[in-house]
Amino acid sequence: MDGDADGRPRLLDSPAAMRGAVLEARAAGRRVGFVPTMGALHAGHASLVDQAVADCDDVAVSIFVNPTQFAPGEDFGRYPRTLDADLRLLEKRRVRWVFTPRVEDLYPPGAATRVVVEGPALPFEGVIRPGHFSGVATVVCRLFTALPANAAYFGAKDWQQTLVVKRMVHDLGLPIDVVVRPTVREPDGLALSSRNTYLAAADRSRAVALHESLLLAERLWQGGAAVAAIERGMRDALEARGVAVDYAAVVAADSLEPLPSAPAPAVALVAGRLGTTRLIDNLLLPPRATAD
Amino acid sequence: MDGDADGRPRLLDSPAAMRGAVLEARAAGRRVGFVPTMGALHAGHASLVDQAVADCDDVAVSIFVNPTQFAPGEDFGRYPRTLDADLRLLEKRRVRWVFTPRVEDLYPPGAATRVVVEGPALPFEGVIRPGHFSGVATVVCRLFTALPANAAYFGAKDWQQTLVVKRMVHDLGLPIDVVVRPTVREPDGLALSSRNTYLAAADRSRAVALHESLLLAERLWQGGAAVAAIERGMRDALEARGVAVDYAAVVAADSLEPLPSAPAPAVALVAGRLGTTRLIDNLLLPPRATAD
Repeated sequence: MDGDADGRPRLLDSPAAMRGAVLEARAAGRRVGFVPTMGALHAGHASLVDQAVADCDDVAVSIFVNPTQFAPGEDFGRYPRTLDADLRLLEKRRVRWVFTPRVEDLYPPGAATRVVVEGPALPFEGVIRPGHFSGVATVVCRLFTALPANAAYFGAKDWQQTLVVKRMVHDLGLPIDVVVRPTVREPDGLALSSRNTYLAAADRSRAVALHESLLLAERLWQGGAAVAAIERGMRDALEARGVAVDYAAVVAADSLEPLPSAPAPAVALVAGRLGTTRLIDNLLLPPRATAD
Repeated sequence: MDGDADGRPRLLDSPAAMRGAVLEARAAGRRVGFVPTMGALHAGHASLVDQAVADCDDVAVSIFVNPTQFAPGEDFGRYPRTLDADLRLLEKRRVRWVFTPRVEDLYPPGAATRVVVEGPALPFEGVIRPGHFSGVATVVCRLFTALPANAAYFGAKDWQQTLVVKRMVHDLGLPIDVVVRPTVREPDGLALSSRNTYLAAADRSRAVALHESLLLAERLWQGGAAVAAIERGMRDALEARGVAVDYAAVVAADSLEPLPSAPAPAVALVAGRLGTTRLIDNLLLPPRATAD
């Protein structure tokens, strides 16, 4: 272990130094886990770190607000940056390395390469945030080179993102296991997100509508309702709480395509805006034959 | 060495087995060189293999006609496939592995990921063969995962391709050295290419026009001629031999952008068609101040 004697993680910003540290650990037979984040860490990130610590000998957490996954006009500039608090959260856990590259460390001058995923990246967020998943795929590919871990940990809250990352890893044959962990929620059901801090007080109480619409979908699904009726019910529930709905859908969990008629795992996906804050959430539904 | 006792290379088509073999060699401290090819091997490929053998402990050659780098209507279907002759050429050299994946080994069902390079991939071949360099970058990225060598060897004949591969490797931080080796030519100057076999006899003799136009560019360049005059001279020389010119240009060798006024390495690039056969060639020019 090369963290400080007091157990503090070692901070690295050089991709070459980070890669060297991971390769050295792996050459010594240690299993390395990696939790990529944009910082502003909350209990959802903490659960990913805890799982990585449980599974692995050494854990690295990256903190990098990736400019290429924000479209022009999105919240790159005001995205919360809370490095001191993030480090305190990580110090309490057995994290060996915190990787904090600068933008120019991951995107060298003249950088001109993007990783573009179609398939699961096309619908939903892919429609509403053009270029977002290309930015995600590119930075994750770059991070995996700097941090050649055995496994990387992602939260199920960004369900579509987990499918995009898995698709890229499979297609490019990247030698890393992608581990997806359940969404962590506030007591009222709101999915934890670094963007929740944007919510005005009135909007915060209405934000529970996303989770409520997912629970409604689950009840309707278990009761055998048709997909179109479930989607209409979700949308109505969101709009009743004042959420400007981007989408409310029940689709195949692994492809985000329309559900086949045979029983298949499904996912309910919702996204909408409260004031200037955009929120997304989802819930996995057990396999069931489509009733429509 | 796990080749046959008679020194024949070991044939592998599984990316996982290929990766395992390379990692095992590297873990034993051996330097691994990789020559990616589309088969139809000629003396240009042989010179890459010979350089890799000279530089490395173990050498792998891949033979894969990559469908994604051919546009619809190009020559994917009729591209020469000469595996037996290719293996005979490789058997004479100290090649340890020949990697012959099938299309579905590199592009799994539902594959939806592309590596897209802009910058040096945009002009020239990027204009004339849309999607070509994305196909190249994607397959090279995928091959580098299956074959995590210390160094990969490319021919200077495809100069723009070497810039695209270097750009991708740099941008994604891929841990491999890109080595570029000089073009090998027929006695009359024609650059070796697997596509030369397409040439009808009359066109074969006229194909020397590409190299002649490059030698003309070199003389004019050394004589201080302006870039526009050199380009006009190249084009005239090609057209005089009946070549349908795609481009004839002198640009910065490392970016393919217009030459700066300060002395800089330059490259003369030509491409054109003789009958149904498309040929490209290039020549590096020594640094010189632009005279226009």
